[in-house]
Amino acid sequence: MINASQTPIQIRSTLKLSLVACTFLLIQACSQTTDNNFTETSDFSTSNHLMDRSFTPQWSNSDIGKDMLAVRRASENSLLSYDIVKSLTVEVGPRIPGSKGDKAAVAWAEDKLQSLGFDKVYKQPVRVRNWERGFADARVLAPFEQNLVITALGGSIATPEEGLQAKVLMFDSLNDLQLASNGEVEGNIVFLNTKMQRDRAGKFYGQVVPNRVNGAVEAAKLGAKAVIIRSVGTDNSRFAHTGIMRYNDEVKKIPAGAISTADADILEAMFETLQGSDQEIVLSLNMQAKDAGWQTSYNVIGEFTGSERPEEVVLISAHLDSWDEGTGALDDGAGVGIVTAAAKLVKETLGQPKRTIRVVLYAAEEIGLVGAYQYTRANKDDLPNIIMAAESDFGAGQIYQLDTRFNSAVRNNAEDLYAALAEMGITLGSNDARGGPDVSMLPAQGVPVISLRQDGTYYFDYHHTANDTLDKIKIEDIQQNQSVWAMVTAYMANTNFDPRPAEPLE
Amino acid sequence: MINASQTPIQIRSTLKLSLVACTFLLIQACSQTTDNNFTETSDFSTSNHLMDRSFTPQWSNSDIGKDMLAVRRASENSLLSYDIVKSLTVEVGPRIPGSKGDKAAVAWAEDKLQSLGFDKVYKQPVRVRNWERGFADARVLAPFEQNLVITALGGSIATPEEGLQAKVLMFDSLNDLQLASNGEVEGNIVFLNTKMQRDRAGKFYGQVVPNRVNGAVEAAKLGAKAVIIRSVGTDNSRFAHTGIMRYNDEVKKIPAGAISTADADILEAMFETLQGSDQEIVLSLNMQAKDAGWQTSYNVIGEFTGSERPEEVVLISAHLDSWDEGTGALDDGAGVGIVTAAAKLVKETLGQPKRTIRVVLYAAEEIGLVGAYQYTRANKDDLPNIIMAAESDFGAGQIYQLDTRFNSAVRNNAEDLYAALAEMGITLGSNDARGGPDVSMLPAQGVPVISLRQDGTYYFDYHHTANDTLDKIKIEDIQQNQSVWAMVTAYMANTNFDPRPAEPLE
Repeated sequence: MINASQTPIQIRSTLKLSLVACTFLLIQACSQTTDNNFTETSDFSTSNHLMDRSFTPQWSNSDIGKDMLAVRRASENSLLSYDIVKSLTVEVGPRIPGSKGDKAAVAWAEDKLQSLGFDKVYKQPVRVRNWERGFADARVLAPFEQNLVITALGGSIATPEEGLQAKVLMFDSLNDLQLASNGEVEGNIVFLNTKMQRDRAGKFYGQVVPNRVNGAVEAAKLGAKAVIIRSVGTDNSRFAHTGIMRYNDEVKKIPAGAISTADADILEAMFETLQGSDQEIVLSLNMQAKDAGWQTSYNVIGEFTGSERPEEVVLISAHLDSWDEGTGALDDGAGVGIVTAAAKLVKETLGQPKRTIRVVLYAAEEIGLVGAYQYTRANKDDLPNIIMAAESDFGAGQIYQLDTRFNSAVRNNAEDLYAALAEMGITLGSNDARGGPDVSMLPAQGVPVISLRQDGTYYFDYHHTANDTLDKIKIEDIQQNQSVWAMVTAYMANTNFDPRPAEPLE
Repeated sequence: MINASQTPIQIRSTLKLSLVACTFLLIQACSQTTDNNFTETSDFSTSNHLMDRSFTPQWSNSDIGKDMLAVRRASENSLLSYDIVKSLTVEVGPRIPGSKGDKAAVAWAEDKLQSLGFDKVYKQPVRVRNWERGFADARVLAPFEQNLVITALGGSIATPEEGLQAKVLMFDSLNDLQLASNGEVEGNIVFLNTKMQRDRAGKFYGQVVPNRVNGAVEAAKLGAKAVIIRSVGTDNSRFAHTGIMRYNDEVKKIPAGAISTADADILEAMFETLQGSDQEIVLSLNMQAKDAGWQTSYNVIGEFTGSERPEEVVLISAHLDSWDEGTGALDDGAGVGIVTAAAKLVKETLGQPKRTIRVVLYAAEEIGLVGAYQYTRANKDDLPNIIMAAESDFGAGQIYQLDTRFNSAVRNNAEDLYAALAEMGITLGSNDARGGPDVSMLPAQGVPVISLRQDGTYYFDYHHTANDTLDKIKIEDIQQNQSVWAMVTAYMANTNFDPRPAEPLE
């Protein structure tokens, strides 16, 4: 647990480690998505066998089958997940860690869990570094005067108060930048213009996000004054996508911002237009972000206590914080709505669960899984009691696949669950799930996790932009998520199925 | 012609008349779109007869048929219209009338027409009132603190320097506002929350745009401090849509802004959440727009002089100005590209046209067709020489219908033209076209016009927003427009077909 007795240096290095881990996990989580096809996993034949059986009514004849069917029916008549994300986004809105909005979100969450009748509602302090965006302004001064839509990357330092001006150099990728020479880059503004492809699983995020996370360090190594990146997003619009970036203590800190994809196109077209001429593109950049110091945020936790095995915990989660320009509807208001509603529906439909259902709404995911690491430290002795952990943090697109990280000796025993999901068109995928960012550190402790893989075709159109608002959530989509999470939660809470320990990470 | 010898009062009243006319035309142009179905027009049987013949090869055997086919083929191998709008949006960008960008656009246009080899390139001064947006900031202060995305409406006055704060009252429509009482509205901020439906012909624009144009006057009549409207747009996003609004000298001027549709949803949801409570929604509004005085802008005109009947003019047009937040790609960079490329392709493919082809790039359309009225006044004696006038000003969506306003006695004589277009899937519509905003005043002078009706399904997602940028234009779409305009221009310039005078306005 990070507490006041830690020195600033300890805290800083913990945060830095978190950021490094976050980056690593983001990249891993994304590269992992290439394995999303069931036919690519080793247990094809076994699972396929289960799939074959999914269309028999058998699963719904068992007690747990009846339970799952009951919560599914209840969910289909419930707008609870939507109502929760609506309440969060309308009554609280943006909630960057440590901000006034974040504190309002914590109060909102406690109140919401209490009003939904959770048996226990409590919060766990998390020290977070508050960063304030301030204004950001970018304009091409020559040879064609134009303003560009820009946003500061999370954690970026400010430019000098009067801004800075320099020639812009465009690179297609971080790799191309790394191949450039000091002489070429020194004193200039680096523009990283890597395009991101659209994909259901969002698998190209991991290829492009290093521009955002590491762009400033790589550009600064070569003496750049600042870095701007093409937004890590699949939209063509003038919304700039923010997101965490990091510095390296060995390398000079330079300001880092993202321009919208439309503005990146404009800048690229300027380079095209000037090809063969010796005219330079001069950019003026002024961003006044600031580090606003330490604040206390909280993981907010609600439980329905198990009636038979209260010490055994089914942990379902989302993160409460968001970036500060949108209202955090998809990222991660949707997750907050989905897991909270799932727990409530199980309790309401089936009564007290046999195992404890714990809803964890993590603090400060966006700035490096800070709340999740704090949870892991503070609950170290309790981790072996977690039967399964999972997070919903990929918007509100429909679920199409269940990945697990279960003890493989028992994995196939959850056949009623797999069959119930198969009937909804959800396939069983691999056994190398990571469970979502905030539970991704748990499998290393032996905690089983699952990933309910969502359709993310449009997720990166809105991700980390001002345009992440409630209107992007389709009721039928979030309701499908709610149903699936409620069924999984019912299964894990009311059966003896015990997939501990998780298979080791490969 | 408005010139320096006019008194400010004369000029102001001319401008006011223009604004009134603009509003009227906007509404008329849109309500007219309900008549877009050929089967609803009176000349069904005749035109249907022509349609039947369109699939015979007959039209392409005539000299003009061969000409049209040749320009169509040339167009299909040309990216000229796209390259022109790219050049305008990248090298100039935003160009609100009278601004530095507008002056750059005039220089760009002269240069572009000259470099394309037009025989004559000249410009016509237009006095315009320059309006500067300044910043705009709206935030809900109570009971839920949130920032709203807002933009000032074109022509709006500023709030007091320190902003203003008041309770918000929501109305579903301008009509509902008009039914409210002074006591209810006085001292408050009016929020007009009318939703706009999506439609291929954009026919719902005319129903909603009065909120924008007249909202301030109607709200001020009841004593409101300010008005904010739900953006006149079909998107769900956080782009606010600007556009011209007007005041009335008899009614107090109050500031007017548009919030994005997503923000309107948030505000509406706040009202829902508070239903039955006595809590008020308090908004803080600060907009620092200003009237920046008179400037000179220009209609920029390029001609290919007729080889046989140089005094007879085929006038094809678009407007050069744009709103100031996007780069004016759809509105109306696309039109500039389409008509300029069409003229050039005709000349390049067929040689000197028989009649003069005149490309007019109007100034200051957005603030009330100011350049178009100026053109009409300055060219009063030449109007009878215009064989046909038309404007492209509805983005880059594909053309699906030709409407005309021709002398009905000869309308059917253009059968080769109709047949050539029919082969491209373009139907012949009504004979009550208005021709586009900047030529809409010409039929009253007997000038024939046509409207090449475009697919505007997505046009109002981007219209008057920062998101109106080049990436919204599909090359195949603008190329189809280019082909059709080139074919129509070739037909009108190289035949004896003479549809003068236009049928009177109904």
